[in-house]
Amino acid sequence: MLKFFILYFYLIFQAITCFSVNQINVGNKYSLIRNPQSNVPLKVSIIGSGNWGTVVSKIIGMNAQKLKIFHPIVKMYVKEEIVEEEKLSDIINKKKENIKYMKGMKIPENILAISNLKEVIDDADLLIFVLPHQYLDNVLDEIVQNNNLKKNARAISLIKGIKMVRSKPQLLSDIIEKKLDIECLALSGSNIAEELSREHFSESTIGFEKKGNEVIWQNLFDRTYFKVNCIQDKPGVEICGALKNVIALGVGFIDGLTASYNTKSAIIRIGLEEMKKFAKMFFPNVLDETFLDSCGLADLITTCLGGRNFKCAKEFAKRKGRDSWELIEAELLNGQKLQGIDTTKEVYDVLEYHQLKTEFPLICTIYEISFQKKNPCSIIDVLSTKKLRNIKYK
Amino acid sequence: MLKFFILYFYLIFQAITCFSVNQINVGNKYSLIRNPQSNVPLKVSIIGSGNWGTVVSKIIGMNAQKLKIFHPIVKMYVKEEIVEEEKLSDIINKKKENIKYMKGMKIPENILAISNLKEVIDDADLLIFVLPHQYLDNVLDEIVQNNNLKKNARAISLIKGIKMVRSKPQLLSDIIEKKLDIECLALSGSNIAEELSREHFSESTIGFEKKGNEVIWQNLFDRTYFKVNCIQDKPGVEICGALKNVIALGVGFIDGLTASYNTKSAIIRIGLEEMKKFAKMFFPNVLDETFLDSCGLADLITTCLGGRNFKCAKEFAKRKGRDSWELIEAELLNGQKLQGIDTTKEVYDVLEYHQLKTEFPLICTIYEISFQKKNPCSIIDVLSTKKLRNIKYK
Repeated sequence: MLKFFILYFYLIFQAITCFSVNQINVGNKYSLIRNPQSNVPLKVSIIGSGNWGTVVSKIIGMNAQKLKIFHPIVKMYVKEEIVEEEKLSDIINKKKENIKYMKGMKIPENILAISNLKEVIDDADLLIFVLPHQYLDNVLDEIVQNNNLKKNARAISLIKGIKMVRSKPQLLSDIIEKKLDIECLALSGSNIAEELSREHFSESTIGFEKKGNEVIWQNLFDRTYFKVNCIQDKPGVEICGALKNVIALGVGFIDGLTASYNTKSAIIRIGLEEMKKFAKMFFPNVLDETFLDSCGLADLITTCLGGRNFKCAKEFAKRKGRDSWELIEAELLNGQKLQGIDTTKEVYDVLEYHQLKTEFPLICTIYEISFQKKNPCSIIDVLSTKKLRNIKYK
Repeated sequence: MLKFFILYFYLIFQAITCFSVNQINVGNKYSLIRNPQSNVPLKVSIIGSGNWGTVVSKIIGMNAQKLKIFHPIVKMYVKEEIVEEEKLSDIINKKKENIKYMKGMKIPENILAISNLKEVIDDADLLIFVLPHQYLDNVLDEIVQNNNLKKNARAISLIKGIKMVRSKPQLLSDIIEKKLDIECLALSGSNIAEELSREHFSESTIGFEKKGNEVIWQNLFDRTYFKVNCIQDKPGVEICGALKNVIALGVGFIDGLTASYNTKSAIIRIGLEEMKKFAKMFFPNVLDETFLDSCGLADLITTCLGGRNFKCAKEFAKRKGRDSWELIEAELLNGQKLQGIDTTKEVYDVLEYHQLKTEFPLICTIYEISFQKKNPCSIIDVLSTKKLRNIKYK
């Protein structure tokens, strides 16, 4: 009870200081903010409270306490479930801990868990989408139905994946933009949630298209232990986040076969090349440097060394492809789902439709091993040719 | 004895077929070979017989047997030593195995181990330098003294490292070029010797400057399990091979502290950035794509995950920098030497001399931890700043 009183006074205090004379002149400091209401602190809502969402609530909660351009109370949407005979949202608000998805990490006092989506969206200026991609459509439908989204709200997507619409890859951030008619950026990087919960130094990348709001988002996410690069290339950032999981399957196969570092690093290298080629085919303006940022190279390395997709693919190869992905998932992931498998299917369908299979030998072989009973060893065959490589002249 | 007879007849047979009517017309197939004697098969000599040199002898021995542009007998220089009461060169020639440096790997029949450098150089058209960098000067001096090097011989360096001459980094291949007055290319890649001895798929990169001989070298090294990219950027290839060992120290420190994947991948990413920056400062024409080839990204990943430098740096950080590198080397490396330590010193001296330290915070911190008793934790401090990163606009 005492805790609630302290929280109450704390929040009142924050709200007062927010409008005090010490307030940074937002219009000057963030001259890129063109919102006419820019002197009013921006209200932030987080849509999602899984392990990554919960860690994001810590990062953003701390920044919202510190920076006066943000409203001190941050709402977090919790898809209600019962944990130890209590509602998860109640547990989070009382204990300041998400005991189901990020046990042991303290959630800042100014995070308010709410299970009613309408209430979370109400009044929000900045929406952070951080939920499994399979729930996105439903959540967007509900937001549209509720009809209480601010017109000048802005969003950022932390969701990994791409969706194929009429055989063209579509960015999840673009789907959010179209459905809600608001701008949506993307954030992706080498960000294992559990490591960030313990404040291990990490980097991340925000991809944006139009100049204007990137500085706000950078301020909202940047911490001394979480450095955020912003790059004017949203498709590049998002394609990296999706395709890395496909390449991680390939590296996992190798690890199950020979565990050769030479071969694994070659697969990562060729994988990055195919990721870039794919991105450039469908989004011609992507930048080379995006693939060298945290969302590209760094996240690819992390995902290819210890992620879920890597682990399951390793097991798949060890069992010589005899067991189904469903079985391996069930045995290894404790109810979590593999993202790489869906993405591999989606990407392969696109390549097949556009008759581009020969240009992406690695991705196509990963698909064939995963779904067409091809021997996991064949991932090496596709690389081991007698043909000499082309020479690169200046 | 019988073995020697078989070898003798085999070599005679090879030498005959070499000049037979079935010979590929070298002048047509390799039109880039401008050597007027191009119809005479090129004699190859390998200078070095450590673990990498021995594996290279297998790769090249097989190609020299197969391709008629190369003389079927390949000489390998062995710095003589006594192993199990016998000369190492005799053991290699009799057993076809280098029992000291690559036990268990069969060396092709057409490799001839020779402990007399003059004999190895005599008549050689193609020299492969693959020895520890500290022996290079002596070997070059001896070659010059012997005065039997062919005028139109060509060389390739597989040696890792750079040398500082009047505070400028100098490529080892350039040192070979100047000293011997012959062209020298460079080969570097993600090539753990032991894995290649078992024919695990690997890639490598040859860097060249002038067009002309790159195809010969590619043919000499390329195998189905060892794919060789050629890129017209020798400095880029060689700088990558040297600086990766510095970055591996940084990743090793992190592994000894938190073992965070997020942080390690960030160090690799920032490390690649500083490697490229360093290369461009002293060799302005290096190409971006070199850093994405096997010699760059792929070798960096491999070196940062399991190489000697990584392992020793991890131990150094675990012991909080209290024990000397010499002690850790002695305990962990069984007589082998750390390359990264020397390179770190050399690179730091250059940066200090040119007042460039602030532009290379990662490399400089790695130096200070390694040699100035700075706390290994400080590698994270250098990254964790309050300053927002610059935004990259198109």
